[in-house]
Amino acid sequence: MINVAVAQSGGPTCAINSSLAGVYAEAVRHEDVGMIYGCFNGIDGVLRERFVDLRAELDSSSRLELLKKTPSTALGSCRIKLPADDEEVYGRIFSIFEKHNIGAFFYIGGNDSMDTVLKLSAYGRKIGSPIRIMGVPKTIDNDVLATDHTPGFGSAAKYIAATLREITRDSQVYNVDSVTIVEIMGRDAGWLAASTCVLRVVGESSPHLVYLPEKPFSSDKFIEDVKAQLKKRRAVVVAVSEGLKKADGGYAAEGYTSGVVDVFGHRYLAGLGKYLEDTVRREIGCKVRSVELNVMQRCASHIASKTDIEEAFAVGRAAVKAALDGESGRMMVFERLCDEPYEIKISSADISVIANGEKPFPSEWINPDGNGITDEAIPYFLPLIQGEVYPEMRAGLPLHFRLRAKPRA
Amino acid sequence: MINVAVAQSGGPTCAINSSLAGVYAEAVRHEDVGMIYGCFNGIDGVLRERFVDLRAELDSSSRLELLKKTPSTALGSCRIKLPADDEEVYGRIFSIFEKHNIGAFFYIGGNDSMDTVLKLSAYGRKIGSPIRIMGVPKTIDNDVLATDHTPGFGSAAKYIAATLREITRDSQVYNVDSVTIVEIMGRDAGWLAASTCVLRVVGESSPHLVYLPEKPFSSDKFIEDVKAQLKKRRAVVVAVSEGLKKADGGYAAEGYTSGVVDVFGHRYLAGLGKYLEDTVRREIGCKVRSVELNVMQRCASHIASKTDIEEAFAVGRAAVKAALDGESGRMMVFERLCDEPYEIKISSADISVIANGEKPFPSEWINPDGNGITDEAIPYFLPLIQGEVYPEMRAGLPLHFRLRAKPRA
Repeated sequence: MINVAVAQSGGPTCAINSSLAGVYAEAVRHEDVGMIYGCFNGIDGVLRERFVDLRAELDSSSRLELLKKTPSTALGSCRIKLPADDEEVYGRIFSIFEKHNIGAFFYIGGNDSMDTVLKLSAYGRKIGSPIRIMGVPKTIDNDVLATDHTPGFGSAAKYIAATLREITRDSQVYNVDSVTIVEIMGRDAGWLAASTCVLRVVGESSPHLVYLPEKPFSSDKFIEDVKAQLKKRRAVVVAVSEGLKKADGGYAAEGYTSGVVDVFGHRYLAGLGKYLEDTVRREIGCKVRSVELNVMQRCASHIASKTDIEEAFAVGRAAVKAALDGESGRMMVFERLCDEPYEIKISSADISVIANGEKPFPSEWINPDGNGITDEAIPYFLPLIQGEVYPEMRAGLPLHFRLRAKPRA
Repeated sequence: MINVAVAQSGGPTCAINSSLAGVYAEAVRHEDVGMIYGCFNGIDGVLRERFVDLRAELDSSSRLELLKKTPSTALGSCRIKLPADDEEVYGRIFSIFEKHNIGAFFYIGGNDSMDTVLKLSAYGRKIGSPIRIMGVPKTIDNDVLATDHTPGFGSAAKYIAATLREITRDSQVYNVDSVTIVEIMGRDAGWLAASTCVLRVVGESSPHLVYLPEKPFSSDKFIEDVKAQLKKRRAVVVAVSEGLKKADGGYAAEGYTSGVVDVFGHRYLAGLGKYLEDTVRREIGCKVRSVELNVMQRCASHIASKTDIEEAFAVGRAAVKAALDGESGRMMVFERLCDEPYEIKISSADISVIANGEKPFPSEWINPDGNGITDEAIPYFLPLIQGEVYPEMRAGLPLHFRLRAKPRA
């Protein structure tokens, strides 16, 4: 009989709770699993021994289903990078695991969280601990190595595609030239902005221009591109990754933001979208608007991808099976067997080849002009946004899972 | 046998196409109606005689259904205020109506568009024209007089409530004090920001503070309010109407925005949300984020209110019936008979009591502190967001109605 523990880390997504549900659903099937602990606020909750009894929290199938459909992290999250050279903290974590008879620990998170999995499992191996440490991937950024894609990405991409289509309708109402700039998350990798190419499948030509952090960005070239588009159409829609960088490596909006000062002498931190909006206004002078999809793109569970939510659940279950089969120091991954019909296989990869790495959007899927995505990317993205998970509604409002236990110390 | 014409005007909503569908669906039932013209870009399209044959465009029930669920204005829109003292333009419009044997004209729009209905119908009456001019209300702002509410408002309120709940989940993940400011449309009337009070029905305490343009706004009081909330909870969520004004009548963010200058000496137009975000950062210093719901709140048809879409359709139909019964110079209105069970009656009101007026959010539904909405407002809002209209999907993406005819000259 062993107990197991699970925690969530990094930025929220629509699917990270589904992976939590998957971990629980598999663990509860094994008679040799005792307590199933949820740790509050990631590894921070382990260090503070702030645990919740998930058997009590998920005591009905309806609670489990609600958890799967609830955005963000039900257990809370953290942004902690464990020190590389302070073994005391690892010793403390393992003694807490031992104290609570925790035989397997599951960490659901993105690249930074996999660094924690790497360090914990390396320490465990060093001290000869039998405790299994497993990573369950999640991130809307889709930039994790060794896996075809990450849970959370498909739902974000689906929301962004649906919303970008709606914004396109909205942008076309007036009989005047206009530019609409949609700022999409992605500081270092442009997967989400690139994924908007799926709209071509339903005959949408928008977004007409797409810029990713994988290619150096030039404001002059951007203005030229927009002018060329305005010769073809009245309402130009541009999708940009928030992390666009210039040839010198600095963020595209960097000089601008640091140069902006308010009446009190304080710096004003403008976003990239606002910067590009202002650039179009100054250089072209037409109607222009910027739209930041902000946190909605990672938490809009009201239009989640069914494929994504189900895969997130499956990968959580698979992590438990793998750990109970003796695996440790590994992250679960998707291997794509076929685009159409879509088929994936879930397996695991050594955490050391994943942690602290990053998977950029493939340059061969960026057009030669560096302002659009080629059709070859569509079969990759399309399966990930299939199917809809709509929320349970009461009184016209979405229901969310919330812990009964107080989530904070 | 008469022809009829319909046009859309003002800002887009999720329901304005449903009213267009309603006008068509009723007109097509009458044997004495010949051509059913759609006019491109509102009254501008009338003046340019840019018409489309709606019988050809809406030649199947599936096209009509798709139109009902498609956001924004299928016919395009305009923001034209007809001159009060230039009779030539009215003469021109009426001669175009006569030339095309148009016996009834339907204008779907908000307050500004009702000004057009007023002027056209006054001119028609003056020259003794038998042409009927009818207004069909729409605006997400809900600020039109003489009607209980406006089509488009319910869908915007539903999107905002669902999204604000998701943003609240997102805001609660880290174990640190934080403030999230959600900027909601409403330049002069705070109906949309106020409508977030419906979340109490599903046990959500967020938004914890709400500020409307109907009450003078003070930054000092705002900071005091936020500090008081931070004593009660870690993650404070604030809903603000974009049009907050200070006691002197100036916009709350006005001094700030005009004081911000970039490296080129250009003024930077910051939004209210960014202004308040920066104020919290400076005065309190905790984690803070602002989120602008931007155009999504008026075009997110992927989570439209069924009640809203159906009422928008019904009011379009009712306008045609009224016109064919001889009414003119009137706007269709909703009269609420009961909150629970919800019951409304559709009738019409004289356009002269509506045009150029504005309906503010009732001050008796604002709490004495001016930073929240009382429970008394909930039964007003709740029926308007009931039921969901999800989009037709293909390949995981929403389908939109688009005209076959080219919408632009």
